[in-house]
Amino acid sequence: MTSTDYEPNIVLETGSYNVVGTRPVRHDAINKVTGRDQFGADIKFAGLLHGRILRSPYAHARIRSIDTGKAEAVPGVKAVVTGDDLPKTDDVALKYRRANILAGDKVLYAGQAVAAVAAVNLQIAEEALNAIEVEYEVLPPVLTAPEAMKKDAPLLHDDLSTESLGSPVEGASNIASYARYELGDIDKGFSEADEIVEGEFYTKTVHQGYIEPHTCTVLWNEDGRIIIWCSSQGPFMVRDYTADRLGVPVSQVKVIPLEIGGGFGGKTAIYLEPVAALLSKKTGHPVKMVMSRQEVFEGTGPTSGCYVWAKIGANKEGRITAAQAYLAFEAGAFPGSPVSLGALSIFAPYDISNELIDGYDVVVNKPKVAAYRAPGAPQAVFASEQLLDDLAAKLGMDPLEFRLKNAAKEGSRRVTGQPYPRIGLVELIEAMKQHPHYRAPLSGPNQGRGVAVGLWYGIGMASSCTIKVNDDGTVNLIEGSADIGGTRASVAMQAAEVLGLRAEEVLPTVVDTDSIGYTATTDGSRTTFATGWAAYEAAQSVKRQVEERAAAVWGVEPDSVELVQGVVRSKTDASLQMTFGEVAAQMADTGGPIMGSAVVHPRGIGPSSSGNIVDVQVDPETGKVDILRYTAFQDAGKAIHPTYVEGQMQGGSVQGLGWALNEEYYYDENGVMKNGSFLDYRMPISLDVPMIDTVIVEVPNPGHPFGVRGVGEANIIPPIPAIANAIYHAAGVRMNTLPMNPGTVLDRIKKANGR
Amino acid sequence: MTSTDYEPNIVLETGSYNVVGTRPVRHDAINKVTGRDQFGADIKFAGLLHGRILRSPYAHARIRSIDTGKAEAVPGVKAVVTGDDLPKTDDVALKYRRANILAGDKVLYAGQAVAAVAAVNLQIAEEALNAIEVEYEVLPPVLTAPEAMKKDAPLLHDDLSTESLGSPVEGASNIASYARYELGDIDKGFSEADEIVEGEFYTKTVHQGYIEPHTCTVLWNEDGRIIIWCSSQGPFMVRDYTADRLGVPVSQVKVIPLEIGGGFGGKTAIYLEPVAALLSKKTGHPVKMVMSRQEVFEGTGPTSGCYVWAKIGANKEGRITAAQAYLAFEAGAFPGSPVSLGALSIFAPYDISNELIDGYDVVVNKPKVAAYRAPGAPQAVFASEQLLDDLAAKLGMDPLEFRLKNAAKEGSRRVTGQPYPRIGLVELIEAMKQHPHYRAPLSGPNQGRGVAVGLWYGIGMASSCTIKVNDDGTVNLIEGSADIGGTRASVAMQAAEVLGLRAEEVLPTVVDTDSIGYTATTDGSRTTFATGWAAYEAAQSVKRQVEERAAAVWGVEPDSVELVQGVVRSKTDASLQMTFGEVAAQMADTGGPIMGSAVVHPRGIGPSSSGNIVDVQVDPETGKVDILRYTAFQDAGKAIHPTYVEGQMQGGSVQGLGWALNEEYYYDENGVMKNGSFLDYRMPISLDVPMIDTVIVEVPNPGHPFGVRGVGEANIIPPIPAIANAIYHAAGVRMNTLPMNPGTVLDRIKKANGR
Repeated sequence: MTSTDYEPNIVLETGSYNVVGTRPVRHDAINKVTGRDQFGADIKFAGLLHGRILRSPYAHARIRSIDTGKAEAVPGVKAVVTGDDLPKTDDVALKYRRANILAGDKVLYAGQAVAAVAAVNLQIAEEALNAIEVEYEVLPPVLTAPEAMKKDAPLLHDDLSTESLGSPVEGASNIASYARYELGDIDKGFSEADEIVEGEFYTKTVHQGYIEPHTCTVLWNEDGRIIIWCSSQGPFMVRDYTADRLGVPVSQVKVIPLEIGGGFGGKTAIYLEPVAALLSKKTGHPVKMVMSRQEVFEGTGPTSGCYVWAKIGANKEGRITAAQAYLAFEAGAFPGSPVSLGALSIFAPYDISNELIDGYDVVVNKPKVAAYRAPGAPQAVFASEQLLDDLAAKLGMDPLEFRLKNAAKEGSRRVTGQPYPRIGLVELIEAMKQHPHYRAPLSGPNQGRGVAVGLWYGIGMASSCTIKVNDDGTVNLIEGSADIGGTRASVAMQAAEVLGLRAEEVLPTVVDTDSIGYTATTDGSRTTFATGWAAYEAAQSVKRQVEERAAAVWGVEPDSVELVQGVVRSKTDASLQMTFGEVAAQMADTGGPIMGSAVVHPRGIGPSSSGNIVDVQVDPETGKVDILRYTAFQDAGKAIHPTYVEGQMQGGSVQGLGWALNEEYYYDENGVMKNGSFLDYRMPISLDVPMIDTVIVEVPNPGHPFGVRGVGEANIIPPIPAIANAIYHAAGVRMNTLPMNPGTVLDRIKKANGR
Repeated sequence: MTSTDYEPNIVLETGSYNVVGTRPVRHDAINKVTGRDQFGADIKFAGLLHGRILRSPYAHARIRSIDTGKAEAVPGVKAVVTGDDLPKTDDVALKYRRANILAGDKVLYAGQAVAAVAAVNLQIAEEALNAIEVEYEVLPPVLTAPEAMKKDAPLLHDDLSTESLGSPVEGASNIASYARYELGDIDKGFSEADEIVEGEFYTKTVHQGYIEPHTCTVLWNEDGRIIIWCSSQGPFMVRDYTADRLGVPVSQVKVIPLEIGGGFGGKTAIYLEPVAALLSKKTGHPVKMVMSRQEVFEGTGPTSGCYVWAKIGANKEGRITAAQAYLAFEAGAFPGSPVSLGALSIFAPYDISNELIDGYDVVVNKPKVAAYRAPGAPQAVFASEQLLDDLAAKLGMDPLEFRLKNAAKEGSRRVTGQPYPRIGLVELIEAMKQHPHYRAPLSGPNQGRGVAVGLWYGIGMASSCTIKVNDDGTVNLIEGSADIGGTRASVAMQAAEVLGLRAEEVLPTVVDTDSIGYTATTDGSRTTFATGWAAYEAAQSVKRQVEERAAAVWGVEPDSVELVQGVVRSKTDASLQMTFGEVAAQMADTGGPIMGSAVVHPRGIGPSSSGNIVDVQVDPETGKVDILRYTAFQDAGKAIHPTYVEGQMQGGSVQGLGWALNEEYYYDENGVMKNGSFLDYRMPISLDVPMIDTVIVEVPNPGHPFGVRGVGEANIIPPIPAIANAIYHAAGVRMNTLPMNPGTVLDRIKKANGR
């Protein structure tokens, strides 16, 4: 067992790799393309009950009473639960977390779960929902952060006091928290500026839009153990959160992970599991719940709509002297927007001596937000990367040249004062500048080219891995990381590299929460980085044991032999050689099976930089924006499996593109979402997206044995401002609201033309 | 990772235990009694096909041809396979192993698998079996070892040459192997004897009689991996054997263990798995196979019927001077009876200077035998323990006193010449002597009391274990041992003892073969011993890490703290104390998750002694034997969970009782079993069995940290001779054949009475 905290003495494994950097077929490929893999909704059991949730039709209301009697009397209904079935608590934060599972005395968004039914089939469960009588006292809703921050705004919570949260606003309010980040002297910075730009920007609530709705099956067993079969980004997250909501110890919960049909941050939270657990406890049967698409939109966690004001100044030499921002992010009904991540991201790519950033986390009558790929950064950078283009124009500089001149590098200080480790932003911008796309002429009228960059800190956190050797010279790799984007392969490849095996000779399995050491959620771009590192350490343990076995067979000192590229060799006697497979075949005679376990717990992760060059054409008659050409750049540190890095870059680009041009929660005046289906919530389809060309930049992360940087998130940061900048160059209008859909763009064009 | 070969420097953990020796509710109790656990036959999948096997109606025949055409044409039939679908080999032993899965050019027992069908349902599969046309050339069968050893006996195999196996018999024969064990000078020994007894003994084929028939579901996936869901005594055994039969690498096979409804050695072999795999490969669907009871009797591995001749001499002082035996065991159709274990067991309890034992492994036209609880020993001891009673009587000694006088102890030599380690046989016989049962008067006429003892070497072999700590202070224990008799509990308790946790705070899980280090089969009384030891070592690793974490928190040296009874304490500063749970709760802040893995690979195991005192009443008119009182004694070394030790003792006693009195394969003259159902194969029912009282003797095994001896097998050795001795004392007849059913006993009584 090896336990590695962050950056012990990392020896960067450089030179030529045999497996790292290649593109093997992923281990689960056949199961994915043949439909053999099991997803959450594939689970069936004898005696299975089906659960459905009654959701609030109101964005804001007090619950006067809930009468479940008639519902319980419906033939085939086995149990009904409400918020009263969750344990009571005086801990306000815990009360909020539970109320987002089943409402307490108020509903705070349309779609919030109010009650649930378990019945012998779905039809009866749905019918029974109609028989639950809820008496509401409807209250006025508030839907945006600026509105919610007003003195006379309707208050969502009685017990949300900003005083205790350090806000300058006094008394109870909708401001859940406030944080200020300050570096240098902002006034002095602006006084040194020759040009200053500023602007206000607004974004809407958008959803991650994963294909697979939330689903789970839960058995509250008679021995007290709660067994959960579900798709998620983190089985341990589901375990811990379910235990938290139900008030039971974590070891009482066992989560069996199934394959996941997309998450993008949205499956780092739980919704159904505690409800299904309560229904199972009441009935003694396993209970299955599957959300409809409308429920996914209205009852899960999209990302924040927000208001951002920003101001940037630079001197004639093209150096940014000051940058200031004010961000107010919608948390949804309960505290917890990614405003702090937005604040840390907005000027992150730049080396700026004087910064001041204020961030407000504001509750509104919308679903509680969840993580979405680089949470908070796209909204924030929508502001800064447009202003930066304006500033470059005022200074007469090329936008990439201006960014390059101010790019953060190793030793530059973040707004928190901490210095950057080795990052690859300069190399990334250089790659963008030199790319043919950046120099290619545009092909027609109403076309424009935009650029933008982003910089993202992922997270480290704990990962565990066990590797055991088979007699036939292969190894099994046991991990706890949900595989969303091919991490079975990218983790296994790191073990294969250490052991000198082929990628296919390392067989990865993602096991349940009882069967592997704690492993944090697949989020924060962490899995290939941290679980890969755990695999590296477990493989090192196996490597040492294999060397010891060979040495014992030869009767030499273990230190005198070495496993290199799959062959154990004596360092001094060339006649002594055994392949990994030969050592494996003799295990039973040389001391028994070989198994190695490792836990890593890095505190951080090497930041990843990203950039986009995008060409658009704007139809001046309709305002429709067509994407003509798109090139995405990202610093992967070291791309373990380049195909999956490219896939992440393309995926992030397309999600950013949808967010930029079309996606939004469309609310009526009562705070009810009116477009909760994939017909009405317009995500990009294949016809909307050209080939996303990708350029992987590799500036190794000194904080990882193979130099890996997490690549899952940074790619969604530049698309929105890059497209906005392209629209500006194509149509001459600066977009400060999202989405930049035809109606909005046309409106700006008309206004610009004085129509 | 700790790798422990046999007996490094075992420190016997003595003194008072907190968990070891207690009787907690087993971890899987609720799932067992509520029917929640999944057994092999509970597996269902979409697209599942059902497989059935065509079996030979003849005990011995050449297969001239198999025409599967009509069967393949049956609507709903998806595939038919025969022995031709298994890979060919020149390795004779491998050819035999494969022929026991699907016959080659001959069938060698009635019930041998000849072909198999996969169809959309069971009915169609069964119907299709009738459409398979097999042309047989029927050959004469041979059914017992003495018959098969005759010069003119029908030969089962052309390629079984005893010459190459070291037998004194020349040329091809049915003798598969021969071994002689010799100690001292047998002639000299007998010359020193004052009394000599000898006799011939015969036993029949009997079956383990587990409740759950063999069953499996197999998917040969399109990626080449073979996934097996099945009940067995060893998932790794199923993995390795299936790979062997199919000629694929072991890592291509993944076995997912389900709960097991009894094994007793019979599920240490495979039958259906390769067949289902071939059917799955042909169809692309998962294929499920479930044996009928008749198939279990005729198509799996019972234990050997045998012939034993034995001769024992002792001097007037009551010391055995010489013991000789000749054993001929039926292997069934292919080599591999437990004759060598019978030979090593027959005089094992005694310290005898002069021994000569000849053992013959003989093929006959019956199913290939499999292991059955202390394989070979009950048959052998049926002879020796009766002769010993006769000898004691001739010497005028109490039978227990005579045994005590000759009992093997530490340093006594086995027939192999190896000295015994510390064993508890003397203590066991003392306990029998002192037990009230031994001194209680019999209550009526035709009653008799018998005693017998046995000594059994289990096996060591590899076990792996991983333990990981949960934030709530519990731990998960991951193991690869099939749990037949409560080993989840007995393994978890050893980890709990090390960590100072309650048994319930260690949550054991038996995982699939991809997810844990190699772990040998649950047989040879090994699991509580070896997997428990692996758990002990993994817990020691966790203990060290917990101590290190606490030391780091306190800023002291790890060596200065100690985890004792669940509390980490500084050895020098009484104010420094943290519970295991407190350290666990802080893991994320002190270096991340804690996980410990260990592999042990003991080469042997401390032998376990057993003894029975049994009172019977024999009806002189019918020959029916009633068991009046039964007390079983066994040396457990240290009973981790006494209830399960007692359960093993009671189970072994009852199985021995059934074998003694009623069980047998009843064959017709053509070698076809005529009683292949539980109606006709008479196993004991509750009315046949009194309470089996149990006395656990504890003489700690110095080869295990807690002194554990394997307890699964030794208990079946004494019942048969103990009952035979009791019958002798009740009815005055010496039984030398099994079963001692009413007809046989009455026949002996009549003969003894000259009728």
